[in-house]
Amino acid sequence: MKRYGAELVGTFWLVLGGCGSAVLAGSEIGYLGVALAFGLSVLTMAYAIGHISGCHLNPAVTLGLWAGGRFPVGQVLPYMVAQVAGGILAGGVLYLIATSQPGFDIMASGFAANGYGEHSPTEYSLVGALICEVVLTMMFILIILGATSERAPQGFAPIAIGLALTLIHLISIPVTNTSVNPARSTGVALYIGDWAIAQLWLFWVAPLVGGLLGAVVYRVIAPSKD
Amino acid sequence: MKRYGAELVGTFWLVLGGCGSAVLAGSEIGYLGVALAFGLSVLTMAYAIGHISGCHLNPAVTLGLWAGGRFPVGQVLPYMVAQVAGGILAGGVLYLIATSQPGFDIMASGFAANGYGEHSPTEYSLVGALICEVVLTMMFILIILGATSERAPQGFAPIAIGLALTLIHLISIPVTNTSVNPARSTGVALYIGDWAIAQLWLFWVAPLVGGLLGAVVYRVIAPSKD
Amino acid sequence: MKRYGAELVGTFWLVLGGCGSAVLAGSEIGYLGVALAFGLSVLTMAYAIGHISGCHLNPAVTLGLWAGGRFPVGQVLPYMVAQVAGGILAGGVLYLIATSQPGFDIMASGFAANGYGEHSPTEYSLVGALICEVVLTMMFILIILGATSERAPQGFAPIAIGLALTLIHLISIPVTNTSVNPARSTGVALYIGDWAIAQLWLFWVAPLVGGLLGAVVYRVIAPSKD
Amino acid sequence: MKRYGAELVGTFWLVLGGCGSAVLAGSEIGYLGVALAFGLSVLTMAYAIGHISGCHLNPAVTLGLWAGGRFPVGQVLPYMVAQVAGGILAGGVLYLIATSQPGFDIMASGFAANGYGEHSPTEYSLVGALICEVVLTMMFILIILGATSERAPQGFAPIAIGLALTLIHLISIPVTNTSVNPARSTGVALYIGDWAIAQLWLFWVAPLVGGLLGAVVYRVIAPSKD
Repeated sequence: MKRYGAELVGTFWLVLGGCGSAVLAGSEIGYLGVALAFGLSVLTMAYAIGHISGCHLNPAVTLGLWAGGRFPVGQVLPYMVAQVAGGILAGGVLYLIATSQPGFDIMASGFAANGYGEHSPTEYSLVGALICEVVLTMMFILIILGATSERAPQGFAPIAIGLALTLIHLISIPVTNTSVNPARSTGVALYIGDWAIAQLWLFWVAPLVGGLLGAVVYRVIAPSKD
Repeated sequence: MKRYGAELVGTFWLVLGGCGSAVLAGSEIGYLGVALAFGLSVLTMAYAIGHISGCHLNPAVTLGLWAGGRFPVGQVLPYMVAQVAGGILAGGVLYLIATSQPGFDIMASGFAANGYGEHSPTEYSLVGALICEVVLTMMFILIILGATSERAPQGFAPIAIGLALTLIHLISIPVTNTSVNPARSTGVALYIGDWAIAQLWLFWVAPLVGGLLGAVVYRVIAPSKD
Repeated sequence: MKRYGAELVGTFWLVLGGCGSAVLAGSEIGYLGVALAFGLSVLTMAYAIGHISGCHLNPAVTLGLWAGGRFPVGQVLPYMVAQVAGGILAGGVLYLIATSQPGFDIMASGFAANGYGEHSPTEYSLVGALICEVVLTMMFILIILGATSERAPQGFAPIAIGLALTLIHLISIPVTNTSVNPARSTGVALYIGDWAIAQLWLFWVAPLVGGLLGAVVYRVIAPSKD
Repeated sequence: MKRYGAELVGTFWLVLGGCGSAVLAGSEIGYLGVALAFGLSVLTMAYAIGHISGCHLNPAVTLGLWAGGRFPVGQVLPYMVAQVAGGILAGGVLYLIATSQPGFDIMASGFAANGYGEHSPTEYSLVGALICEVVLTMMFILIILGATSERAPQGFAPIAIGLALTLIHLISIPVTNTSVNPARSTGVALYIGDWAIAQLWLFWVAPLVGGLLGAVVYRVIAPSKD
């Protein structure tokens, strides 16, 4: 049970930190600041709770680690539930803070929700969004599997993984607002409702497919015992 | 006595670095630069004096570490006194430098003081400010307890903790100018006086409450021996 | 064969991450964001695949490591082929994503290609570009040789090397759009064709010369057994 | 002799990286980018040559380490000579690259030289500049002594020290363009001549005084065997 609590708290931090910086401070810190915020939410939490739950914070990561032979199948679903719960809780706290500013309009703000087509920040199509999310999640899981290998330098994985998420955002915020994480997408989409719910399927399908592909590619390039 | 000297010097650095970058260079480096500065002040000092005093630099951290069973109650008050003294000293040095620029106006500058309502950078209400400071300090202390656990990778805690403070600023500078640290708030409020003193209570109450909550939540999610 | 696969995937990530952030998000994240993206692509991949292939991702690095006595001559060419293939593959995926945005014009975008003279971002001459690329690649290889020395702190080399690439971009994006890596230059030049192909020679010659010089200078300053 | 070569090459990198980013890319990357560049030049070189020369790259650091009992007096002067030579060499290479851009005007650019009064970036007075440079160098040397202590986590000092230099620039570029390093100031002042030479004394006196003070303060707060 401790592990599920840690995943819930950790994903709460990822969504509060990443989406919170975008909603509350995005107009000041820009995409660069938001990209840094998402990465640091994972970096910091991986040092804080990595020894408790492994700090996945993301259903695509949990699925990818299972496919990579690093995580037992029986815990996949409970991990995902805890992650989504943490994301939704963070969305709620963020909503409370954001609406304490006079004139805040959740629909106008976008509330950091992910989208494609007319809801992509700069109008990338469904196909472009799909390719982008699949490829970036694939590389994310590949980096996670590599950096947490027993043959990689010990203790540094949180830096590699957190900054990989920063890099992923530096590439793709303009395309989809960057998901690569269904729990993060769900955590804010519920408060927007409407189009954000209608487009949510892509931000479950693409990251999960990408997570599986990342495990496959890693197995191809890594030594068999890795 | 060495430890108190280290806390004084360390908190001096946190306030000179964080508030100094905001007051002297904020219009150039933006919220992103200021967020980085606060985090790096803690990261750098934690490597420099962590082995001397543990590098708390913050009454909320000291209280949270006590509540988490990591710090003796008898040193809580002297640590807090040293931290506040360091913060006030930094405010004074910053005042000397800032006023050496022709036309500097401390009230117009805000002197990096924390505030809510009409003194929030973008007018977040008292309630929003309170939630924000409590939740972010709670997560800050949780990260500190986790990253300094014996089961976490050794030597990396200063990176996790410093960059957690950067992330906290990326989220909340627009809300309260970000405190999560009563010594930091006090160190500059004294030079503004006026409204900054009148609102200072919140930046003691919220971080201290958040510090206690962080210890509670960490105990819930962490193994009992952690 | 695993090693060549790792170099291909790694260079794919370098070009997708670095050039991708420039093409898709450059107008938002600026040169600073792009510089960070290039560095993080190497930092993250070095932790992920360093234990598989050494994570060169760059023909100039492979040549420099050979000249520094750290890499067998027989693998130099296959490594370079894998790197260029990975770069070209990344250019293709980037092209697919970029063209999914209505109105995208590859020639107007520049597609992150490297250039000098009228194709330098701010019109630096061929000679300036040449000096810049040679000197920066020289220092890059020197840092790689030093940071991966057995006498340097173990496990930190990916941080040093990745952030060295960030620094190199902070200096020289305005001069040549920064190459120091023939595989990166080739990976995007092919899609621009035209002037980018015509100027590509410099971004092979200068980095390779710089890589050799870096090995020479490192041998001069380092102890003989290093 | 190897050590002096390493200090020369290392200081070459600090000045080429820090001042080079300011001169060539400053208008794009801003003070934040330049601050990052200075810090990364030290971080990267400390991993590359720390095991050869200790990577001081700065006469104030060399003096402070001597005062802190960490460096033999007989090598202080040769280290300083090598550092200044490396700085001047970097200024020359930077001049070659910069002047390859049509219309480059060294006086209008400022060439990243340090100054006070009318040559401070935002007109801070001589006294403000003096306080700022002394205090920041003092804290820099204190951090170096602490982070390289045998009781601090091993291997992390380059991160702490490099990012301390970034933080110092985040605070003080608007005041003096930030020196805290006489070799860096000299390396570019010679190419400006004129006012930069006339004001150069302050950027020797203040950092050297600050370096000595840093050693004194560290001895006050650190355990006697540290």
